[in-house]
Amino acid sequence: MAGGVGQEAAALQDLYPDDFSHCYGCGKLNAHGLHVRTFWRDGEGVAEFQPAPQHMAMPGYVYGGLLASLVDCHAMATAAAATMVAAGHRPGIDPTPRFVTASLQVDYLRPTPLGPVLQLRSSVAERGERKVIVQVSVTADGTEVVRGRVVSVPIPRSMAR
Amino acid sequence: MAGGVGQEAAALQDLYPDDFSHCYGCGKLNAHGLHVRTFWRDGEGVAEFQPAPQHMAMPGYVYGGLLASLVDCHAMATAAAATMVAAGHRPGIDPTPRFVTASLQVDYLRPTPLGPVLQLRSSVAERGERKVIVQVSVTADGTEVVRGRVVSVPIPRSMAR
Repeated sequence: MAGGVGQEAAALQDLYPDDFSHCYGCGKLNAHGLHVRTFWRDGEGVAEFQPAPQHMAMPGYVYGGLLASLVDCHAMATAAAATMVAAGHRPGIDPTPRFVTASLQVDYLRPTPLGPVLQLRSSVAERGERKVIVQVSVTADGTEVVRGRVVSVPIPRSMAR
Repeated sequence: MAGGVGQEAAALQDLYPDDFSHCYGCGKLNAHGLHVRTFWRDGEGVAEFQPAPQHMAMPGYVYGGLLASLVDCHAMATAAAATMVAAGHRPGIDPTPRFVTASLQVDYLRPTPLGPVLQLRSSVAERGERKVIVQVSVTADGTEVVRGRVVSVPIPRSMAR
């Protein structure tokens, strides 16, 4: 995926500092994790995710907790990217700052079929000094299945040991 | 855990019909799942959960997506139990009806330490014919770390194949 700056852009999560790369949802150093990978494109976060067969709510449908997890990690990367852009940094090229989730709202618009690759798109609804609010949309086979609204904050000092 | 009816009460999730027992979060038939188990006690849902080492946001702290998953499955069982009581059925003894999540709100009050067994408690905030709203509190070492508010609905026919 081109970064538009003469250099191939990486996933935002792959540029978290190593100390923050163990997240079960998106850390490149978590061997057991989901490895959500968000790319920054034209002012939006985009990601794809293939649920595993065990990620079911019931046969044929994706588990809601997995969808919440995807929304969460995708939103944190989006908050980081938008903050980077505002500071003149390059998402997908420069190191990604780590945000954490203050609150997560997920609306399940309809059952999500288990099988297709899920598409996530996200954008910033509101950005302040102390928080960034991100909206996320998840589609399956071209149909929107989930909407999320996530309040993210820069990582508190107490967590950044 | 005593059911108060002269019979040992089971976890609500263990009494879902087999067709609805494959949930990644709480299905007894999902070999790879989290196996959230909710007991009904004195009008509340109670559960304990020990996160695995890989369920981290970063070293020392629990992953928010896992917490959202616990809240989700615990709330669905709580909605079911309250509905059973209203219908004169016995939670933890009679079969548990399956609810699904319409929307999930999770507030992360403070970072959740990875290590202690998490305690979940839940109660019904509102119960109507078409939806049940459940509030959930998660504590770690006696401190409340997460609050959830979950809108649940009886499983739609389209999902109950």
